[in-house]
Amino acid sequence: MRAEAAYAELIAHFRELAVLESCEDLLGWDEETYMPPRGVEHRGNQLALLAGMTHDRLTHPRVGELLADLAHADLVQELHSVPETNVRELRRLYTRAIRLPRLLVEEITRTTCLAQQAWTVAYRKSDFPSFQPWLEKIVVLMRQQADALGYATVAYDALLDEYEPGARSDQLADLFAALRKELVPLANHLTAVRRRPNGAILRRAFPVDRQRQFAQRVALAIGFDFQRGRLDSTTHPFCMTIGPHDCRITTRYDQGFCDAFFGMLHELGHGLYEQGLDPDHYGTPMGESGSVGVHESQARLWENTIGRSLSFWQYFYPALQEAFPESLRDVGLDEFHLAINNVEATPVRVGSDEVTYNLHVMLRFELEQALLKGDLPVSDLPGAWNEAYRHYLGITPKNDREGCLQDSHWSEGIIGYFPTYTLGNIMAAQLFARAQKDLGDLDAAFGRGDFTGLLGWLRAKVHRHGQRYSATELIEAATGSPPDHCHLIGALRRRYGELYGLAEC
Amino acid sequence: MRAEAAYAELIAHFRELAVLESCEDLLGWDEETYMPPRGVEHRGNQLALLAGMTHDRLTHPRVGELLADLAHADLVQELHSVPETNVRELRRLYTRAIRLPRLLVEEITRTTCLAQQAWTVAYRKSDFPSFQPWLEKIVVLMRQQADALGYATVAYDALLDEYEPGARSDQLADLFAALRKELVPLANHLTAVRRRPNGAILRRAFPVDRQRQFAQRVALAIGFDFQRGRLDSTTHPFCMTIGPHDCRITTRYDQGFCDAFFGMLHELGHGLYEQGLDPDHYGTPMGESGSVGVHESQARLWENTIGRSLSFWQYFYPALQEAFPESLRDVGLDEFHLAINNVEATPVRVGSDEVTYNLHVMLRFELEQALLKGDLPVSDLPGAWNEAYRHYLGITPKNDREGCLQDSHWSEGIIGYFPTYTLGNIMAAQLFARAQKDLGDLDAAFGRGDFTGLLGWLRAKVHRHGQRYSATELIEAATGSPPDHCHLIGALRRRYGELYGLAEC
Repeated sequence: MRAEAAYAELIAHFRELAVLESCEDLLGWDEETYMPPRGVEHRGNQLALLAGMTHDRLTHPRVGELLADLAHADLVQELHSVPETNVRELRRLYTRAIRLPRLLVEEITRTTCLAQQAWTVAYRKSDFPSFQPWLEKIVVLMRQQADALGYATVAYDALLDEYEPGARSDQLADLFAALRKELVPLANHLTAVRRRPNGAILRRAFPVDRQRQFAQRVALAIGFDFQRGRLDSTTHPFCMTIGPHDCRITTRYDQGFCDAFFGMLHELGHGLYEQGLDPDHYGTPMGESGSVGVHESQARLWENTIGRSLSFWQYFYPALQEAFPESLRDVGLDEFHLAINNVEATPVRVGSDEVTYNLHVMLRFELEQALLKGDLPVSDLPGAWNEAYRHYLGITPKNDREGCLQDSHWSEGIIGYFPTYTLGNIMAAQLFARAQKDLGDLDAAFGRGDFTGLLGWLRAKVHRHGQRYSATELIEAATGSPPDHCHLIGALRRRYGELYGLAEC
Repeated sequence: MRAEAAYAELIAHFRELAVLESCEDLLGWDEETYMPPRGVEHRGNQLALLAGMTHDRLTHPRVGELLADLAHADLVQELHSVPETNVRELRRLYTRAIRLPRLLVEEITRTTCLAQQAWTVAYRKSDFPSFQPWLEKIVVLMRQQADALGYATVAYDALLDEYEPGARSDQLADLFAALRKELVPLANHLTAVRRRPNGAILRRAFPVDRQRQFAQRVALAIGFDFQRGRLDSTTHPFCMTIGPHDCRITTRYDQGFCDAFFGMLHELGHGLYEQGLDPDHYGTPMGESGSVGVHESQARLWENTIGRSLSFWQYFYPALQEAFPESLRDVGLDEFHLAINNVEATPVRVGSDEVTYNLHVMLRFELEQALLKGDLPVSDLPGAWNEAYRHYLGITPKNDREGCLQDSHWSEGIIGYFPTYTLGNIMAAQLFARAQKDLGDLDAAFGRGDFTGLLGWLRAKVHRHGQRYSATELIEAATGSPPDHCHLIGALRRRYGELYGLAEC
């Protein structure tokens, strides 16, 4: 078979598969947003059926034949070309998939669908024991998944590779240790400083309807295309793409203004990345997002680097005051800006400050490795979680709702994902530093409400490349040097040094 | 193969097919409720893919083999037993389906998906020309569908049979002519009478938020299970079942209180039927609703027979007044009750009164037959529509939005459905007359807000039977006699005679 024909058949196959998978995505979105409670069992059946069908198509022997036909074709010789990118990444996908038995895939889908409902209830009631059997089942299934996928020395790496291709847990552990060494003194420095933000202003009344309107307004102003997307509310914020022109983000409004607003900005960053992918390549690696770490870099960039900057609020704060006059009439911009940059050891990751955030991530990274390895029985998780918070952040969650039940990830069968948040922070800082070099005074633009320059830069340097590059290659191509945590530490020192009036910290 | 094994395989096959079809249903629901505008093209691809897959499964040769194995099996000898019902109706479904080429099915799905969006825009702008090419395409496709399905003498009957198995357009034409003969004088009588309802009170301010709350409250009180369902708003009201415990209804709030409330009650009737089906038989004919006419009978029963009765409002009117004190404080129950039973020739079917409603249906029945036959070019539809309204109701719609664009049916490829509304009215009146005989004073129960007696009767006599009986058999089993339009005429004469203070009309 001629390589061109094999390539065309491969692409057509995967484009159709993407359409089928996008039906699963809608089922998942609906489950979290609008599905009636008792719809859950049937939803499990729907998702299991589609997951089995997509797995069959992904692992169809014809895919293996086509990939074999293309192994040495001229078509795929040029590194980072469209065909080379597509064939390389589809091969990776296929190779992982054929290692997973269909029955295991269906079992994971069914279990996690039900487990998410159990988690929602457990979370509301802060009732870990009701969730424990589900998590136990999920840990067993994840071990089976890792075994099926195979790994060099550590089972965890098989799961991690799903989210961050090529990453290894021992290397991450080293990187995190280095980061931690600089972060902990910085956090201690900032929490000990005399100038304290007035956090109480953020706990005043912010009626949900007006928060919703304000969030929509900011998302629109930044560049989220509501003709091609939505913003809803769910128990846990997320971003889900249903099609090339249909990307949906959510946030939650039941845990205060900052949680809702910065949760929205985080998902907005994911959404802008998804909306920036090339729709002509939809359903193929060239039109799909890169590693989870790269995705997180986009989310954290808008949430923190931009969303907590003074220039951002120079533009948006008057509108915020106007939306919530009862609560903010007497609060100046500087006071507000300091309050949203309060560095403080708190129990909940989402909504925690930029500095301590990475410590939340590191302890999850350790705990999920221990769970998978079997060193930590699920029944001991609440205790181990609380112990880790004492050790890393010097605090104890007051219940499991603000403790080990706070994130939905594990209920979704997502283990090996957490470290990508910190990788994302590192990449975000590095990308932003370079964008500033290329584009000049970004703060002046933000102060005018102009985000088009930066968004355009991200579109060109990150979004449009899809999976052309690995995360490391992408950062090197965009910034001129490989990922390096010094940009993150440097940015944090600058922002918080200024904010808290320290010459150096 | 033993018949028991063949039957089990057949049922398993169709249960899985139902799960797959229910994914299509969610895609359809989302398209109407929450999908971002530019998601439409991909939604067409998703629906086309799933429609092709479900068609393949429905028409799989194995189904034909299993049905052949079961043709003379002892298992299916007992008329109206579960196996006989399931095999009979699956055979009907299969026989129709194998006559439809897959490419045609996919083309219809794709076209109607895009046509619905075009209709939504055309409807908003009252712009028939922008919708015309879509309707032309749909008429051609529907003709192809009728030809593929086959028919004795009239192509229309092939489409009608999809909604009302066994019905024939010439017989319906006779039935409708007989009904019309009694309806037209009744309508003339009522519109000429001196006592005029004060329709203006219904056009006062009814803020949408409070309408939404009131609608939810009524739906709940009547017996709609919100653990197993939802109520949303869409351009055109509908009811969609996503799973055995997930039934979603919608209404619209942009065209006045009556349109919204009675639209909701109509869909609620559909929803109660769906929620009353036996979930253990989900995915098989025993657990699925009967003919569209039977479905409509349930919708019209709650919308009109009950929803426009005095006793219903004796219970709910105080709550309505409390919800809208600005508009209803000075309006007594009798005045309100008369206003919602205003008999008047109006251009819009949804929200028209019980008496003239059937005339709206009859003219659509005639027009869609003419469209399909080719006697009426689509470009002439607006003129023909307006002419029919002059002829049947003595009025002229002031634009196409309240004229031939008012219903979404044709944009969805639904031709042959309209007559089932009037069939539904006939059956609703007959069922209600029998329920009153069996249960005693229903008005007293409604006046106390107790709908459980009637709902239980409908569950037992109609809902739980699924497709056990044909529409005619079902009515005969439930009421003791075959469908007869005298119950409808009798009920209308009684209600409106009393309301308008006539001894007889």
